Amino acid sequence: MTYGDQRTYKKVEIIGISKESIEGAINSALHKAHNSLERLSWFEVGEIRGHVGEDGTASEYQVVLKVAFQLK
Amino acid sequence: MTYGDQRTYKKVEIIGISKESIEGAINSALHKAHNSLERLSWFEVGEIRGHVGEDGTASEYQVVLKVAFQLK
Amino acid sequence: MTYGDQRTYKKVEIIGISKESIEGAINSALHKAHNSLERLSWFEVGEIRGHVGEDGTASEYQVVLKVAFQLK
Amino acid sequence: MTYGDQRTYKKVEIIGISKESIEGAINSALHKAHNSLERLSWFEVGEIRGHVGEDGTASEYQVVLKVAFQLK
Amino acid sequence: MTYGDQRTYKKVEIIGISKESIEGAINSALHKAHNSLERLSWFEVGEIRGHVGEDGTASEYQVVLKVAFQLK
Amino acid sequence: MTYGDQRTYKKVEIIGISKESIEGAINSALHKAHNSLERLSWFEVGEIRGHVGEDGTASEYQVVLKVAFQLK
Amino acid sequence: MTYGDQRTYKKVEIIGISKESIEGAINSALHKAHNSLERLSWFEVGEIRGHVGEDGTASEYQVVLKVAFQLK
Amino acid sequence: MTYGDQRTYKKVEIIGISKESIEGAINSALHKAHNSLERLSWFEVGEIRGHVGEDGTASEYQVVLKVAFQLK
Amino acid sequence: MTYGDQRTYKKVEIIGISKESIEGAINSALHKAHNSLERLSWFEVGEIRGHVGEDGTASEYQVVLKVAFQLK
Amino acid sequence: MTYGDQRTYKKVEIIGISKESIEGAINSALHKAHNSLERLSWFEVGEIRGHVGEDGTASEYQVVLKVAFQLK
Amino acid sequence: MTYGDQRTYKKVEIIGISKESIEGAINSALHKAHNSLERLSWFEVGEIRGHVGEDGTASEYQVVLKVAFQLK
Amino acid sequence: MTYGDQRTYKKVEIIGISKESIEGAINSALHKAHNSLERLSWFEVGEIRGHVGEDGTASEYQVVLKVAFQLK
Repeated sequence: MTYGDQRTYKKVEIIGISKESIEGAINSALHKAHNSLERLSWFEVGEIRGHVGEDGTASEYQVVLKVAFQLK
Repeated sequence: MTYGDQRTYKKVEIIGISKESIEGAINSALHKAHNSLERLSWFEVGEIRGHVGEDGTASEYQVVLKVAFQLK
Repeated sequence: MTYGDQRTYKKVEIIGISKESIEGAINSALHKAHNSLERLSWFEVGEIRGHVGEDGTASEYQVVLKVAFQLK
Repeated sequence: MTYGDQRTYKKVEIIGISKESIEGAINSALHKAHNSLERLSWFEVGEIRGHVGEDGTASEYQVVLKVAFQLK
Repeated sequence: MTYGDQRTYKKVEIIGISKESIEGAINSALHKAHNSLERLSWFEVGEIRGHVGEDGTASEYQVVLKVAFQLK
Repeated sequence: MTYGDQRTYKKVEIIGISKESIEGAINSALHKAHNSLERLSWFEVGEIRGHVGEDGTASEYQVVLKVAFQLK
Repeated sequence: MTYGDQRTYKKVEIIGISKESIEGAINSALHKAHNSLERLSWFEVGEIRGHVGEDGTASEYQVVLKVAFQLK
Repeated sequence: MTYGDQRTYKKVEIIGISKESIEGAINSALHKAHNSLERLSWFEVGEIRGHVGEDGTASEYQVVLKVAFQLK
Repeated sequence: MTYGDQRTYKKVEIIGISKESIEGAINSALHKAHNSLERLSWFEVGEIRGHVGEDGTASEYQVVLKVAFQLK
Repeated sequence: MTYGDQRTYKKVEIIGISKESIEGAINSALHKAHNSLERLSWFEVGEIRGHVGEDGTASEYQVVLKVAFQLK
Repeated sequence: MTYGDQRTYKKVEIIGISKESIEGAINSALHKAHNSLERLSWFEVGEIRGHVGEDGTASEYQVVLKVAFQLK
Repeated sequence: MTYGDQRTYKKVEIIGISKESIEGAINSALHKAHNSLERLSWFEVGEIRGHVGEDGTASEYQVVLKVAFQLK
């Protein structure tokens, strides 16, 4: 990539979920996005949320991401 | 649905319009989203706007929604 | 109206109130604005607030609107 | 109430739900707050969200409110 | 839980702390909330902050959470 | 207090009022919180508002505070 | 004033300035607004800014207020 | 102008439009404000929006400005 | 277009880039969107960013836009 | 100073503290900035926070300021 | 530059000014930053403001930028 | 440290990067800040972003921090 060249990007908003960690939720979302979109470039974390299990711990982390990819 | 299972969601931004009410505009947007997207799950209201008619009343309500649906 | 033509708009901030509904409060504000301003064009809802009555229900809805009108 | 007199208020955050309307969800939250809190004074709407039913319409409205009440 | 049924939730704001990780701080806050509140449902991360130790590393993570629970 | 030790805090939102000054309104809110809550630690000013008297001066200052206290 | 009665308010944005204090700047703005507007009701502080004098102290406080008044 | 002197400013919100550029839209709004208001002092850009023409280019730029002027 | 008629819009988030100007970056994004989407209607500028070249000038402008188009 | 002349400013973020008042905390921050920076021009108040003493009053005010100064 | 390598960046806040254009103000700020800082990488536009001249046009554009550079 | 004593803090904005985790990126930024600044006290996480690798996972986490340190 050379700065100054004409490029266009699009951002989509994806929510990933993981029982383990925030990073797990991010990678889950990126993995899904990677299946249907090419040229993924960067992500931005929006909200971090989660569900509380019966035992009073985070039973899952939900991370709202914007994922940017280059348009052809 | 069981919390803790791996799921991924995507959010899209839709603007619904109704002459009648804010709820009407929300349902108009959801109806349209329902035509082309499966597994709609929840919505979040962003902006509420509208047009003013000649008689000085709201001639239409415009509601900007984020609609989330589960990716397969 | 033709896009591309030179127009100028001004926005004023009005608070409408209704015992009935949010839409009622919006129309109350627009009605008042319509009395003293011409060429009202659109509105944007800012805050939605209200007063709680003795019986624990919303005794009035207060909606803060920006109302835009075209300057001559 | 006389302005200038010493008063103190507290705000709590409540989420009301209604199948029918945003106003219904607001009143549901206020009703619940009214059961356990005295001297409710005003409310402020934060988020408006909801669930999408199988038929592609809003099956419930969820409204996040701050409810303020006067401390004794 | 069935969507469409009448439920009411309350959110409280708790700050959890952990020497280890952001997830540790979240679980510390949830654990404390679980001791005094029933029916915890979800959490939303607000701020992530921390203290810097003498060795120039994060000696603790402080996470400001909103924790939501269902009112009876 | 030693950083790195496990502590948990809670924040509540209080509105203090004073005829005199913003600091007066802050202290009025803290005083009230101090009556019912132990281990108050810090506060954060949210909104500063007030009422206008008949003579066109601020007849009272209303300050919305978050007050944090340590949970046992 | 009785809640539930139909009222309409307008907000204008005024910047008051004082050499002395934030409260002084607020009252300066209210005083000016009071000269040309009737039925002033409440104010909301937006920004607090100021100028730094040659001696490294605040040579003036500038407070951006929204002032609300009832429309006839 | 001397800092420290008592001055009061008011801000109004104007939307300027230009086919050419963002700066053109700003100057269009300022020009209109200048026709009816004296002692204009500064402006702050809020939103930058625009309309898309049939050829897929920006057929006009719409800039929402706050314009501040000194009250007499 | 007639206000009051039922219409639905969708917004997508596109990032346009130009070596020359902010307007150039906006038009680059709109041009790309125009290739794959019909009935583009308006745009809203989100962030304005850019890259700094070796000579200490903006070697490219990056503008994050929301582009709205009418759904059929 | 003449508007239109080429000038460049830098903003730094400083936190001032005072036992007495918000204005005291602002001046404490400005005084410190004045010791190491020349050509201080204006300040903008960000957060206002503080510590609560054992007696339930504000034992100190902490004000987060941006201080702007002209670069040579 | 290779992604994944350890790098650290710092952001500083600079205000550039130009009589001509927003881009001119951005480049003026970058030019100044370039004189004293090495390895400038990107910028983010914060506020866009300006001064209004006697003739009712923008006599200068003031752009608040964050400029990021790589630490050695 | 004793609350109530006169202290002044400064905040700087640093971006840390790690291939492993958000906490790794925070510590990378703190480590760098620790090399050139004394009396680091606390940090606040701003944005969390990252780069997407060819395999569709987060190839690095980028965390924008404000780091506060006490001025002498």
